[in-house]
Parts: sequence; structure tokens; C-alpha cells
Amino acid sequence: MHNKSAKPIKRIALLTSGGDAPGMNAAIRSVVLAAHHYHIEVIGFYHGYNGLVCEEYIGMAESLSLIKVNGIIHFGGTILKSARCPLMLEEKGLKLAAETLDANTIDALVVIGGDGSFSGLLALKQYWSGQMIGIPGTIDNDLDGTDYTIGFATAVNTGIEAIDKIRDTADAFERIFIVELMGRHCGHITFNVGIACAAEQVLSFENFNANEQSLKLQHLAAEISAAKKNRHSSYIIVIAENLWPGGAAELAKQLHLQADIECTPCILGHIQRGGSPIAKDRILATKMGVAAVQALIEGKSTVMVAEQNNAMHCIPLAKAIKHKKLVSKQLIDAQQNILALTAQTQC
Amino acid sequence: MHNKSAKPIKRIALLTSGGDAPGMNAAIRSVVLAAHHYHIEVIGFYHGYNGLVCEEYIGMAESLSLIKVNGIIHFGGTILKSARCPLMLEEKGLKLAAETLDANTIDALVVIGGDGSFSGLLALKQYWSGQMIGIPGTIDNDLDGTDYTIGFATAVNTGIEAIDKIRDTADAFERIFIVELMGRHCGHITFNVGIACAAEQVLSFENFNANEQSLKLQHLAAEISAAKKNRHSSYIIVIAENLWPGGAAELAKQLHLQADIECTPCILGHIQRGGSPIAKDRILATKMGVAAVQALIEGKSTVMVAEQNNAMHCIPLAKAIKHKKLVSKQLIDAQQNILALTAQTQC
Amino acid sequence: MHNKSAKPIKRIALLTSGGDAPGMNAAIRSVVLAAHHYHIEVIGFYHGYNGLVCEEYIGMAESLSLIKVNGIIHFGGTILKSARCPLMLEEKGLKLAAETLDANTIDALVVIGGDGSFSGLLALKQYWSGQMIGIPGTIDNDLDGTDYTIGFATAVNTGIEAIDKIRDTADAFERIFIVELMGRHCGHITFNVGIACAAEQVLSFENFNANEQSLKLQHLAAEISAAKKNRHSSYIIVIAENLWPGGAAELAKQLHLQADIECTPCILGHIQRGGSPIAKDRILATKMGVAAVQALIEGKSTVMVAEQNNAMHCIPLAKAIKHKKLVSKQLIDAQQNILALTAQTQC
Amino acid sequence: MHNKSAKPIKRIALLTSGGDAPGMNAAIRSVVLAAHHYHIEVIGFYHGYNGLVCEEYIGMAESLSLIKVNGIIHFGGTILKSARCPLMLEEKGLKLAAETLDANTIDALVVIGGDGSFSGLLALKQYWSGQMIGIPGTIDNDLDGTDYTIGFATAVNTGIEAIDKIRDTADAFERIFIVELMGRHCGHITFNVGIACAAEQVLSFENFNANEQSLKLQHLAAEISAAKKNRHSSYIIVIAENLWPGGAAELAKQLHLQADIECTPCILGHIQRGGSPIAKDRILATKMGVAAVQALIEGKSTVMVAEQNNAMHCIPLAKAIKHKKLVSKQLIDAQQNILALTAQTQC
Repeated sequence: MHNKSAKPIKRIALLTSGGDAPGMNAAIRSVVLAAHHYHIEVIGFYHGYNGLVCEEYIGMAESLSLIKVNGIIHFGGTILKSARCPLMLEEKGLKLAAETLDANTIDALVVIGGDGSFSGLLALKQYWSGQMIGIPGTIDNDLDGTDYTIGFATAVNTGIEAIDKIRDTADAFERIFIVELMGRHCGHITFNVGIACAAEQVLSFENFNANEQSLKLQHLAAEISAAKKNRHSSYIIVIAENLWPGGAAELAKQLHLQADIECTPCILGHIQRGGSPIAKDRILATKMGVAAVQALIEGKSTVMVAEQNNAMHCIPLAKAIKHKKLVSKQLIDAQQNILALTAQTQC
Repeated sequence: MHNKSAKPIKRIALLTSGGDAPGMNAAIRSVVLAAHHYHIEVIGFYHGYNGLVCEEYIGMAESLSLIKVNGIIHFGGTILKSARCPLMLEEKGLKLAAETLDANTIDALVVIGGDGSFSGLLALKQYWSGQMIGIPGTIDNDLDGTDYTIGFATAVNTGIEAIDKIRDTADAFERIFIVELMGRHCGHITFNVGIACAAEQVLSFENFNANEQSLKLQHLAAEISAAKKNRHSSYIIVIAENLWPGGAAELAKQLHLQADIECTPCILGHIQRGGSPIAKDRILATKMGVAAVQALIEGKSTVMVAEQNNAMHCIPLAKAIKHKKLVSKQLIDAQQNILALTAQTQC
Repeated sequence: MHNKSAKPIKRIALLTSGGDAPGMNAAIRSVVLAAHHYHIEVIGFYHGYNGLVCEEYIGMAESLSLIKVNGIIHFGGTILKSARCPLMLEEKGLKLAAETLDANTIDALVVIGGDGSFSGLLALKQYWSGQMIGIPGTIDNDLDGTDYTIGFATAVNTGIEAIDKIRDTADAFERIFIVELMGRHCGHITFNVGIACAAEQVLSFENFNANEQSLKLQHLAAEISAAKKNRHSSYIIVIAENLWPGGAAELAKQLHLQADIECTPCILGHIQRGGSPIAKDRILATKMGVAAVQALIEGKSTVMVAEQNNAMHCIPLAKAIKHKKLVSKQLIDAQQNILALTAQTQC
Repeated sequence: MHNKSAKPIKRIALLTSGGDAPGMNAAIRSVVLAAHHYHIEVIGFYHGYNGLVCEEYIGMAESLSLIKVNGIIHFGGTILKSARCPLMLEEKGLKLAAETLDANTIDALVVIGGDGSFSGLLALKQYWSGQMIGIPGTIDNDLDGTDYTIGFATAVNTGIEAIDKIRDTADAFERIFIVELMGRHCGHITFNVGIACAAEQVLSFENFNANEQSLKLQHLAAEISAAKKNRHSSYIIVIAENLWPGGAAELAKQLHLQADIECTPCILGHIQRGGSPIAKDRILATKMGVAAVQALIEGKSTVMVAEQNNAMHCIPLAKAIKHKKLVSKQLIDAQQNILALTAQTQC
């Protein structure tokens, strides 16, 4: 992944791609500041890879001055906009992207995004010879090789702030809520939120076998009934999106039909994605932006900057997206211990 | 409504009823502090009217000491719990409630809640001769005769904080969101949130005729298309719950099917109900709690304490619940002016 | 104040002046949207009145497009910047301002600010014949004739959020804190924050006679001692800035020296001034911006837009700044009642 | 540190000591849940070590039921109260503590606190033979051997939320602010907040030699002047408490006197200590509470539970407090790089 014969980098293309994540702007700022420090120009392309392949958006590309990134560290969303770009799955799109990069005399491409965005980078490699680097920006925290992705910490915190509010009503009515959380196909958000909001149940891919859905329903119903018999209080189930067919609403319906248990479903949805990044994500994004520019200068390519044990590293992009990063066994155990403990509580 | 021959009040029963609202605890604290000041004891009954009619909950009733209400002014929910109580719609329930109050030598009953709770009070009047007073605690702000109800200001603010986050993603993707807000059958929350989050569309009972649903859909589709043609940007529609059959999800489906417009539905749901009350609700609740106790001492009964033009008043309970309080024409006009203005915007 | 023979307005100058207040950006947006609706151009001048009198800043003035004010409703601060401008107290400055306005063919000047800013407007009247209107934007809420000024509600809420945090430590250590709040020479913030955070003491201009400082100190010390004897708990004193010579730190020192009472002083300072405006301020600013433009079209001048009992009005600028608006007697009484109540609490 | 011959633990004493930190309640909850799971009783002692040595507080000790710790995970402060306890520095106090523990047939003592609290534990070892374990709860993050202490993440986040607000005013006026942050004698909070709020200057023990104060002042003045000449914008200096003699206020005075630079000092103070813990601190506290109980069962003593690379460990108490944990060089470098970059910015 080292490009030993690399000529000095003069121009970087920068874009954000895939679902937006809090801290993307902090990462943009950091890349621009670091690049300027090394006398490298940064061209911002808009709307993800569309900025490289759609006529309309190519025209929007602009040199990112220091003033442009001043005062954005605390903004959610992304000033470079984002988008999905189906064209990047086709040869036609990849060739167009390569042409745009060459037409703009770009030496290196920096993409802030998740696994889909990084697949795009790897595919582009066949058509474009410049350096390429990924910065992990996704609330899902599912990229392998980095302890944290930009946006994850904020999404977890937004989740608990919402559930703290739901708990007020749940307590007042001693009611059962099923709260559905984002995370696509990984339980990082669900487990962390579940522990931090003292959820009575955490249902996620890691502790749930899809083939045992009906068993699970009976088990869940039994646990709820036992808990509610033991004590008067609220009961909050957090559940990962895409886990239960039909989601939280359908699970609530089935608990009602099959076990006469009344639950209120709540889908947090897109409020988890936006908002001002918490300190952790701002600092992570700042460190990663600097690390990305320094990695480019060192000649690295097709790598993702990563945080491991609080230090910056570079790992191959292919490795980062080969497997989804799993929720740590320690965390799952901690949650299950605490769950076992709370389940037996007699208040 | 004055009870001229009133004997001195020695004991008040206090309960919270109906949907919980941020500030209910501040009101509980205020009633208890004011009552103690006048050497009146406050008995807290739990779980709304159930506390008066269900054996189990009657046993939970307790004298509320000052220490019990210390440090609760900033808590959402209600320490007295809440509930719906179908039994209070029957003669049997009303008689039981009256018996419980008499058995506890209660001189006056204070209920913090909304219109359903106050109907209960009025019905109880036939069976119980003590003084009765209502404190308007509901996020819906639909009680006639008071400028504000406890919890409304916080619910509006929680709504805009959530939509500020959604706006980040909507901006990043230049996407259309339909955000469904609470409010039961009134648009107070919807209009206020709509203006405060700069929503491009506000759909509520006040500006929407249910008979013209299909017309409205066409109109809405045309407006969205026009706005999206004029400029690249996000578009947020806020909609009152119970307005569109099937809610935000169904409206999104219809816009997709009939006009090929893609929208993301978002239902804020119960996060609007909880949370720490903002200053306005804490102050309102504090003033109302004191006013309620003073009104009782003055011999008033079957009234609701109300804020009008920043001052405390008492109005007949029957009047407060006869009609839903309408959203002021001024506010609707302001929203429509701003809407007209933003609609023509060419960014 | 009506300018009957007013020629149609084509160009408005807009500036923000004095201390910044949350919601100023929402007001800027609203003025620009409303003006565009009526085909009026808005020229934004930067850095308060300096934008009219300093060569450097005059050059920064620009026509405010709709896109410029898109997405700013929720930002604290002011995109037009602010400043104090001593030159506007001199004839020379006033003449320069008039020249700038004429050179830009400005028909009307809209200033968002407080009493100092409005004095500037009145002084300018002698030198410039265009229409002039003030929008009350100040956290102090001290302008007479309007129930609320833009920024006040947010500043109060920021105050209670800070004190809620301080209360955690105060409770943990059963300690006494003296928290100093902004408000210049008025107690609006202090009283509202005091009630909303359940402060054990509120010290402000309205309940404090400067001549009786030493008496007050003895009295305060006696009250604290009594309260601490009665119960184990925290004790929070909120105090208005500029009230006690030397402020919270000096008061703490004196309580220690003269009464052996240990207090921790805390000065909230400038965190009260910034931050995203809460819904109330965004709505108020939106209504006031529209009302200001409409008032100009109706030919009004040297007035301030004002909210009274939830409706928009215009009142003479001279009246608005003649006297500081007092804290309502009702609010002071409410606080003192509650104080009296809590003081006797025996927890 | 293993107590091989340990008899089964039946009773744990739990207390919180030293400055309160957000997440202490989450840790209390976790210890109680885990202990109950293993059929161990937890006796809560109040007011730190005073709970063991003062007659009055010993009487307050109580068995902590599951219901007592229900619904406290999100509260700031500590339900067990905290305090400094000078008596624990004397033999008399240590003997009293040992007597209290024995009188209550306590098998193990768990203390949630910082280095001072852990010194107390080590001193107690000479007088009491039970097992002892420390849980690192301090916003300062200065305990060696653990990546994070409970409360640190929240304190950093509270700091940036405050400075985000200050930034609004600083931007509006293009003004210089000096914001003083907590951290006692370590720069963990200062560096993290500095990076996350994009501070133009970070002054802390790690990059500041006390002997070079006057040099530093000249240097700082030069940097500010250069930055302000390059561009119109705000300038925020974050400074660690106890670094500059006289603090932020004195530094502001000196910059004014010696370099004619006007700065506004701001001391965040105790708002950094309270507030609801963010997710990170709740999860850390939950894991540490469980780990502490499990360590006791395994016979460990005089250790501190610690998080290293996201996993739980136990390290000797003596090691944890021997040296203050340093701010990582990586973080200091990151901050200095970014600083160097922003310093040369010409906006």
C-alpha cells in the first residue's frame, strides 16, 4: 500500500459519501487544514461520488479555502453534501470518475464514508492510478480495524437522550416501550444504547437467531411477564433495525396478539443521524483528517485511517470492509450480566 | 364557583392524570410547598384516578412531605404516576372515588391533567361535595381559557431539537422528510414547531379540510415539485398526528405512488412527551401550583387555574373543556406568510 | 409615526447591534424573506453601526439573498456580526451613517438590538429622513412595551441548564453556591432563572436596596444559617450582575469573613448569550421580522415592533427606551412566596 | 493483590468520595445490581469517608435495595453524597473507619473516587483487613493505568457545549475569550476540549513551563496579534485551572496591560462537574461496577478497576496514584499540528 515512487501531492479531491454522520464536517475541516499546512490544495466535490460522475455536480466542485471550513467543527451533516451513487457500481461510472479526477489534475482522493463508499474506492482503483484513502465516517461503527468510526459516539448519545425522555413516560404509566435503533446490520448502536439507558431488553443480531423468531417471541413474552409481575415499573426493549421482520411495530403487534402484552413501538429513525457531534467525534475526526493527509504524503494508498487503542493507524481498505466489525464479546456479556441482574429485580 | 361557607381546608388530595407532561413534577412541588405554607396537608394519590378507585392504588396514597418534592422541579414525567381510568366514566367509579376522598377526610381535590381529566372532575361533582380544582397539564395546549398549558413549551422545543437533527441529513441529501408531531386533535404543537424549524410545509387541522384529501395531495405534490425545481435543498413537512389517515408513512406512500415524489417519514412519538421541562414550563407550573392552593383557600371550586397575558386567573372547568382552544389566527397567518415567502425562494 | 406620504420602499438596510442574542439570525431571515415577498431588497451592513460609519465595514455591505438566510434560523450569534459603536454617539458618526444610507439609496433602516442601539436610531433621525424601525433583540428583556425581547427565553433556559448541573454538585456536597447571572441592570433573567431552578435565594435590583448592603448581608447570613440548620441539602443563591459590588466572588468572601459561611461563587458569563435559540425565540423573531417589514410598508417609522399578549404591535422607539421594563410584581411575589415556603422547609 | 484464602463475601460497603463526577450513580447502580446477583448485600455509606468516621453519618448508612438504584443511571451527582474527609489523613480517623466497617460486619469496601480517595484506601489497609477496591470516578482523568475515568467524557462534552455558545458571541464581535477549564493539575480536559471546540490556543501544564511565564505571555501576545492581523474572526484560548497565577482573569489583565490586547475571561467552573452522564460514562461506569464486584469475588484487593483498550483490568491502587496519568503525546501533537495550521490561516 505504499506508493514509493509517489510524486509530491499537489491536489487532493475530497468528498463525503453514504449516510451522513456527525463529525463529517470536523473531518473535512481537518483534511483542509492539514493539507494547507503541507501546501496541498483541496478540491471539494459535492454529493458523494455523484460529484465525480454527474455533469451538474462536477461543475459545483471548488477549491476549499481555510475560511470555508472555519466554524464548521460543530455542525452535523456535511457541507459537501452526500448521496448514494448507483453509477459507481458500473464500469461507466468508474471511468467517468477517473476522467474527472484526471481532468482536475487530482493526485489523491479522500473519501469520508462507510463500507459502500470504500467498495467504490476499491473498484475505482482499476481505472485510476492516483492515491486513495478512506476516512471511516458512519454512525454504524461496523468497519473492521478501527475501534471507532466518526459519528458513532454521537449517534449513541442521541439515542440515550431520546430514550431518557421516553423513560419518563414509561415510568409514569409503568408501560412497555419497544424502541427501534439504527445500525443497519450491526448491533453496535443497539448494545451501547441499551446498556447506557438501562434497557430491560436488548435485541440485536448478536444475541438473536433469525430462525428462532417464534421461540424468541415466547421467551421475550415470558421475561416481560415475569418482570412485570415482580415489580411495578417501566420496561424498555431496544431493538436493532432490520432485525425483526416488520420492525418494532410488528413486534409490538405480535406481543399483543400472542401474549396479550401491550407495548408502544417507537422508531427513532433519522434523529440519530444528525445533530452537533459530541467531543469524541470531533476529536476523532480531527485526528483522522490529519492522519489521512500525512498518510498520503508518506505515499500510502487504498488504506483507511483507523483508531486503535487511541492511536492512529492505516489499514488496507479491503480488510476494513471484508467483514463487519463485531460487537465485542465483553460488551455483550456486560449487557447480559446486567440484564440477568435487572430481570430478577423485585422492586 | 365560590364556596362561601367553606370550612378551612386541612387536607388536599393531589393526583396527575392523562398523558404525562414536562412540568407536572414542578406543579406537584408547588402545590405541596404552597399547601404546607398554609398548614394544609397534601395526600398524593398514585396512578391518576385509579389512585381513588382501585384498592391496590388507594393503599399507595401518602402524605407528601416537603422532602418528597425537593429536587424534582427539573424532572420529566410525574412522581405520582399517571394513567387513564375507564372506571371514572361510570357511576360505580365516581362513587368509589367519592368514598375514598371522604374516607381520607379530604377537603379538596387538585387534579393536574387535560380535558379528559377535567371531565372526570366535573362528573365527580355529583357524587362528592368537596372543592375541586384543575391545573392544566398537557403538551397539547388545547384547553380553552389559558394561554399555555404545562408541558406545551417543552414539547415544542423537543420537537425542534429533533427536527434540527433531521434537517442535517435532509440538507446533506437534499431530501424530503415528513415529520409527524403529537397534538391529538389540535395544531398548537404542529404550527409552533413548523415555524420554529423553518418547515417548508405545515399540515394541520387548521389549514386542512379532511374532505379535500385528494385535492390536498395534488396541491402538496405540485408545491414540492415547484420548490425542488427552484432550488437544491431539503424540504421538511411537519404534519399533525391523526390528520392524514395512516399518518406520515401513508402520506409518504401516496406521494410516491401518485406523484413519484420520494419522502422519508419520521414519527417523533413519545420523545415529545418526556424530558426535563424548559424554564417556561417550570415557571408556569410553579405559578399555577401556588395559584391553585390560593384559589382553594378563597373558596373556589370546579375551576381551572389559567394564565392569561402572563397573569394567573381561574376559569370554570366547564368552559375550559367545552371547546378545544384554537391555534391563533395570527400564528397561522405568520406561518402562511413565511411559507408563501419560502415557496417562491429560488436558491 | 406614520409617514403618510411615503414613497414605496425599494431597499432596506439591516444591521444587528449591541450584545448578540439568540434568535437574531431568525429575525434576519424573517426580514429578508418578508422583504423579498414584497419585492424589497435588503442590504446587510456588518458589525452594527460600524457598518454604516467605518470605511472598511461599509465595503462589506451586501445584498442579502434568500439563500444567504437559508438554514440560519437555529444559529446563535448573528451572521451580520455585531459591535458597539462609540462614533454613533457623536455628530460626526451620525452624519457618516446618513451619508452611507443615502449613498446606497436606502429607504428604510431596520436595527435589531437593545436600548443603546435604539438610542442610536433616534439620534440618527435628525440627520437622515428615511424610515427607521427597531426589532427588540437582547437577552435582558428590559425594553418597555414588549412582553418579550428576542433572546431572553433562550438565555433563561441556558441559565437553568447550567444551574441544574451545579445543583448536582451542590446536592452531593450539601454546599452553598452563589451563581451570578447576566441582565445588566434588570432582574428579568435573575428572577425567571431563580424560580425555574428552585433557587433558595434570588438577589436582584427589584428586591435589594443598594443602601442596605450590610443589613442585607446579615439578613442573608441569618437565612442561610437557619436553612442549613433545618435540613441537610444544597443552597443556591442566584444574583444579578452589577448588583453586589465585586459580584458573586466578593459576596462569597464577605459571607465567609463576616458570618463564617462558605459559598462557592460561579459566574455564568457569556455562555448565557450564545447557543441555538429555543422555539419561543425563533417564533418571536420570525413574527417580528415579518411585522417590521409590514410596518415599513404601512409607512411607520421610529417605532419598535413589540409582542403584547401574543400579538404584534408597534410602539414608539422613544417610549420603549424611556424606562427599563420592570419585572412584574406577580413574578416577584411568586418567587417570594415560594422562597418563604422553602425557607421554612425542614427536610 | 489476591486474597487467596478469602472467605465468601456477604457484605460490601460502598461510598463515593472526592469531587463528584457524572456517572457515579451509574457506577453505584452497577455495583448494587452485580452484588445482588451474587447474593451480596451492599451497605451505602454517605458523605464519603465521613460516612465511616462521623457519628452522624454512620447512622445514615443503609442497605441499598435494587429499587433504590432503579432509574438513577442518568443522574449527575451521587445519591450517596460526597465530601472531603480530613480525618482520614489521621490515625484516629483510620481507626474509626476500621471500627465502623467491622461493627457492620463488612467484608469489602468499594470506593468510587479519585487519587485522594484511593490514598485513603491505602492508608486504611494498615488498620483494616477486609478487601478493598477502587473505581476511578473523577472528571480529571488523571489516574494512571486506566484509559478513562468515570465522568471525564461528560466533563469534556459539557466544556465544548459551553464554548460552542461562547463562540457565537466571540464570532459576532470578533472577540478574544480566555476560557478556564477544570482538571486540577492535568490537561486531559483542557486538551480534549481545546481540540473539540477548535480553540485557537490551548494552555496547559503539558505545553507550558511555569518558569517561562513572561516569555509565554510575549509569545502568546505575538501569536494573537498575528492571527488577528491575518483575518477577522474570533479567537478562543482554553486554559487549565491552576496553570496561570490568578487564572484566566489575571491572564486577561496582563494581556491588556502588557500588549494592549483585550480579552474576555470566562471560568466554566462547576458546570463541568454535574449534568447527566453521556453514554460513554454510563457504559464505563456499568462495566466498572460489575468488574469491581467480580474482582472482589475473585479475591482481589487494593486494586483499581481500569479500562485499557476497551477491556476491563485490575491494577494495583498504589500504581494508579503514584504518578498522574499524562496527556498522550499523540493528542498534544495533534493539537499542536492543528494549532500551527490554524495560526497561519488567512481568512
